[in-house]
Amino acid sequence: MPVGTNATVKAMTPGEMKELGADVLLSNTYHLYLRPGHDVISEVGGLHKFMQWDGPILTDSGGFQVFSLAKLRKIKDDGVEFRSHIDGSLHFLTPELVMEIQGALGSDIAMVFDECTPYPADKEYALNSLKLTTAWAKRCKEAMRNNTPPSPPLTKGGMGGVTQNLFGIVQGGMFKDLRKQSAQELIEMDFDGYALGGLSVGEPKELMYEMINYTTPMLPRGKPRYLMGIGDLMDVLEAVAAGIDMFDCVMPTRNARNGTLFTSQGRISIKREEYKRDSGSLDPYCRCYTCSNYSRAYLRHVFMSKEIISMRLNTIHNIHFFLEFFRKMQEAIGNGEFSNFRNEQTPMLQDNFHK
Amino acid sequence: MPVGTNATVKAMTPGEMKELGADVLLSNTYHLYLRPGHDVISEVGGLHKFMQWDGPILTDSGGFQVFSLAKLRKIKDDGVEFRSHIDGSLHFLTPELVMEIQGALGSDIAMVFDECTPYPADKEYALNSLKLTTAWAKRCKEAMRNNTPPSPPLTKGGMGGVTQNLFGIVQGGMFKDLRKQSAQELIEMDFDGYALGGLSVGEPKELMYEMINYTTPMLPRGKPRYLMGIGDLMDVLEAVAAGIDMFDCVMPTRNARNGTLFTSQGRISIKREEYKRDSGSLDPYCRCYTCSNYSRAYLRHVFMSKEIISMRLNTIHNIHFFLEFFRKMQEAIGNGEFSNFRNEQTPMLQDNFHK
Repeated sequence: MPVGTNATVKAMTPGEMKELGADVLLSNTYHLYLRPGHDVISEVGGLHKFMQWDGPILTDSGGFQVFSLAKLRKIKDDGVEFRSHIDGSLHFLTPELVMEIQGALGSDIAMVFDECTPYPADKEYALNSLKLTTAWAKRCKEAMRNNTPPSPPLTKGGMGGVTQNLFGIVQGGMFKDLRKQSAQELIEMDFDGYALGGLSVGEPKELMYEMINYTTPMLPRGKPRYLMGIGDLMDVLEAVAAGIDMFDCVMPTRNARNGTLFTSQGRISIKREEYKRDSGSLDPYCRCYTCSNYSRAYLRHVFMSKEIISMRLNTIHNIHFFLEFFRKMQEAIGNGEFSNFRNEQTPMLQDNFHK
Repeated sequence: MPVGTNATVKAMTPGEMKELGADVLLSNTYHLYLRPGHDVISEVGGLHKFMQWDGPILTDSGGFQVFSLAKLRKIKDDGVEFRSHIDGSLHFLTPELVMEIQGALGSDIAMVFDECTPYPADKEYALNSLKLTTAWAKRCKEAMRNNTPPSPPLTKGGMGGVTQNLFGIVQGGMFKDLRKQSAQELIEMDFDGYALGGLSVGEPKELMYEMINYTTPMLPRGKPRYLMGIGDLMDVLEAVAAGIDMFDCVMPTRNARNGTLFTSQGRISIKREEYKRDSGSLDPYCRCYTCSNYSRAYLRHVFMSKEIISMRLNTIHNIHFFLEFFRKMQEAIGNGEFSNFRNEQTPMLQDNFHK
């Protein structure tokens, strides 16, 4: 899922996202609650209409943003008090309010409000944090049951017709028994899908892989399993092998704006002097709009000149690169050839992500 | 002519410009000489290929930019010494070099290197400045004659097939007799078109109109007459009445990025609080992509959030507004109804440009 934090995938139109083959977009409860306000979006007809995207939308609950962006946050049993990163105004997000916001936005998939356990956290902290997340998950489920169906009609392309789906989020820090406890408690509540949260928060890769490999198989195979915030495609391969179905990450879009481009020949920093007179296309094996039309010399020039077209062309290419990777992976899985695919892709991914 | 200073109309793709009905684009000798360098663009196949625009391109000579942007400039008989506004590096532009640059870029219309006479300038300054511009115009013409045809093929959509066109620029400050002298000297040299320069540089509107109305009729009717850097559509109407055929201005694009939008109902600053919950389209009488899809509430939200899509949607609308105005004006002229058109449009233009 490409990320459209503020009701737009940065630099892109919905039509371009559709052409690139994007399916679900992710948007953000925390950001849209603060600006322009979920009431505004609801009045204008819901998030799909507001941003002109008629495909499915998943809204993150704001749990992660409250912990990463907001200032002076105080975690209470009821919810989280914090100050806006935009204007310093004081807010109090509760599980009930988070569900109200997501209902007003009319997303196809809502996420429960969770505490994203930081790293490192000792076992006592992780356990208390997990208990809070479980309690909030219950309250989110209850709040949704009491919701009248969200007034803005959900997209027909959505997963559940007119009913908003709700995913639980497994926490538990880096402790296997806590991850297990979290997963079991959520499964008992019967969510529409399950996410792994609190990973890629600073821990070593091996530890992250251990948690993914241990936890994923506990989650119901018949429901979507979603690894939150992971985008490094090497990590994606590991997670898919473990059974993960869904991902989101700002990596393709954010890197694009910084001039870092993923290609079949490895990662490229387009600002480098060596591309100044390079009339070749960015990636000779890529058929995206950018690679079909422009030279590396042009891409370097517009990047150096801080032109908006640079962010557009780079974003188109990086999103194409990621979505194409996922399409090929899905095909390989369908053909029972995932292991081959993984082995074939690994050298290219090492050049793109770990050089 | 929409302005594409750095080989891109800011925020737009060439395909979008074509769809909006743009005909000639303007690009800039000074900027492209400094970055990425005309040699780079020439090596990659010329400006059309570099920026992927297959319609006609007019390149400004850099005269105006040397006087408005560059630092520490010294005007000599031979040319102008200046320091780059980008990195402070020292450069010396001569008429011959300016023609070499424009030849390397392969634009369809090149402009002579001129001194843009500042305002106010006394008569002695204006006369000397005019003499310099005339002398440089001669040298540009000579340099072009000695040019081998530019290696990058010119666009088929261009005005002159494979031959680059060269326009002279009338200077003379705010003195009618000097304007006349400048026009006559240029006409004797027989250029492919004639431009009025050194206007809208700080003088009162009445004085500008006086110069336009006095000078334009002296220029050959059978050749394009181009008023440089004017974009206020009230001024355009005055100039068209005097006989001007061509305009360029950053007004639609620059204003778009600042959130100022031109509409059939007058000018709008999209950041205003009153649009926060406004589900209406920006301009109910406009059929551009922006007005066909988005609410004012969304346009305000993405502007306030500093999203790139804001600059894109605003630019699309403003360019559409300007080009639509020109299309309607051309139609009115064709039907012999320019005076009616002018009277009808004036109230709307007053709301857009002078409130």
